[in-house]
Amino acid sequence: MPSEFELIRRYFSRPTPQAVLGPGDDCALLAPSAGCELAITTDMLVEGSHFLPGTDPRQLGWKALAVNLSDLAAMGAKPRWALLAGSLPEARAEWLAAFSEGVFACASRYGVDLVGGDTTRGPLNLCFTVLGELPVGEALRRDRALPGDDLWVSGWPGLAAMGLACLQGRVQLKEALAKRCLAALQQPLPRVELGLELRSRRLAHAAIDVSDGLLADLRHILDRSAVAAEVGAAQLPSRPAGVDPAFARQCQLAGGDDYELVFSALPERRLELAALAAELDLPLWRFGRIVDAANTRLTLLDDDGQAMAIDGKGFDHFG
Amino acid sequence: MPSEFELIRRYFSRPTPQAVLGPGDDCALLAPSAGCELAITTDMLVEGSHFLPGTDPRQLGWKALAVNLSDLAAMGAKPRWALLAGSLPEARAEWLAAFSEGVFACASRYGVDLVGGDTTRGPLNLCFTVLGELPVGEALRRDRALPGDDLWVSGWPGLAAMGLACLQGRVQLKEALAKRCLAALQQPLPRVELGLELRSRRLAHAAIDVSDGLLADLRHILDRSAVAAEVGAAQLPSRPAGVDPAFARQCQLAGGDDYELVFSALPERRLELAALAAELDLPLWRFGRIVDAANTRLTLLDDDGQAMAIDGKGFDHFG
Repeated sequence: MPSEFELIRRYFSRPTPQAVLGPGDDCALLAPSAGCELAITTDMLVEGSHFLPGTDPRQLGWKALAVNLSDLAAMGAKPRWALLAGSLPEARAEWLAAFSEGVFACASRYGVDLVGGDTTRGPLNLCFTVLGELPVGEALRRDRALPGDDLWVSGWPGLAAMGLACLQGRVQLKEALAKRCLAALQQPLPRVELGLELRSRRLAHAAIDVSDGLLADLRHILDRSAVAAEVGAAQLPSRPAGVDPAFARQCQLAGGDDYELVFSALPERRLELAALAAELDLPLWRFGRIVDAANTRLTLLDDDGQAMAIDGKGFDHFG
Repeated sequence: MPSEFELIRRYFSRPTPQAVLGPGDDCALLAPSAGCELAITTDMLVEGSHFLPGTDPRQLGWKALAVNLSDLAAMGAKPRWALLAGSLPEARAEWLAAFSEGVFACASRYGVDLVGGDTTRGPLNLCFTVLGELPVGEALRRDRALPGDDLWVSGWPGLAAMGLACLQGRVQLKEALAKRCLAALQQPLPRVELGLELRSRRLAHAAIDVSDGLLADLRHILDRSAVAAEVGAAQLPSRPAGVDPAFARQCQLAGGDDYELVFSALPERRLELAALAAELDLPLWRFGRIVDAANTRLTLLDDDGQAMAIDGKGFDHFG
């Protein structure tokens, strides 16, 4: 079997024009841009918890990096560098080749250099750390939502959860819908361009990406900003025909793995946001508003404007 | 069981005065120092591969961070920030409390802020990413060794391997020696101050930390610098009395987990290096020299100056 060093060289060494020094030394060396802050985040994906055993390695490589880039998107940071630590039960060339293809497809799509990492033997576990940059003081933070703000979400929340249910045989979807849902689950597109535009045009107050579920992640904005929200289920994208409406709503509100952005913005910016949606060819849904903190942090209104009970708190690994 | 968010809050939220924004948002925000490069590295520790099941969680917390700081030391970088992604089979408060105590003891000893991370459920796996800073262009790289350089190693290479052998019942050690060896294994002291001084006084050409074994890690310097080396086993610290000399030599030359620094330096700097050793109260052993690249990359001379066969290539996870 080739050695650890040989494997790294073969599958994970690509040019790193954005680094002073890439893989192969004790550390990578990076030259941060003047006038910028660094945004940094790390996410660990474990087989059996975050992805099913037997997941296609190319899709896994894409997704493991993409979910991290989604955190940069939620801050409005420009992705620049990534590191990958991985534990593998065995070093199979075929698997590694496909996995690294997925990683580099995503890295190249979003302009990231893979500058370092670590490989070791153990149960399958993939841990990316990604770094991005943004001008000092301009980050889209969770704690900046203000009463009166509109609440927005991008894209198609719920598709990934429907894709998972479809894979697990819990739901039957028509072919075209199944394909979209599986793509959302397996090859999510982090909303990097949206985050950059929201930040540079100063369109958003607070933002977060949807990894645990729309309502669960919205709650983080509410908690950190000490505000409440009213959400109208009817204002979310229309639920697909031929799917049980309660199930579809559950996926939209509580499904994880979407990697859409939820953000708050002044009502005065609605036209600009509509224009941005058109520019990016990405729908933006105004699905609620921020209100003063109250006993009820989150009020969900059904299609008739009646308050609904909230089920589905989102995914919490130790909950 | 408390939730993931509650666990993080309870055990891993400490003030982060060196960060613009610490844990709790999509990313941490850092303000790099002007005129500096960032050194960044990530290392994954897997139960069963890197530490024994049942390892004391406080020691594990210390060590998981320390081995990463050792990589910063080997570049001559000043440690500043860390992120921790961890997968745990269960969230036991007692284990987490002890583990976080070990992490923060090490972080505080070396001046690092824990600015972010991720926790999830799965087989025990700990992945730190650490960032340090150093003036532009001054890093101690592996690829800068020059023929004529002396080769040096710090401290007490081999103790950690003897500690492991002792734990596994493969060797009997006297009590005082066993204690030192176990401390080297369980609570390694990354040579951060040494790295900083070597770098700022421009004493070293090339450097690496010893994680896989003295000769194995030296080989990385030789490969990257395209040079060869002659190493004198007799110039390493004297081997402890009461231990089989062949076994002790094997530990010194091929034992992993030492986290000493190996570096190359001009012979003209010997006096300054001796002075630095005294200042830091840390022995520095001149154990060989760099020569022009030859057919034999690494020549090992025994106590009589005769070339020895080299056994023990060092630990390679997929070798």
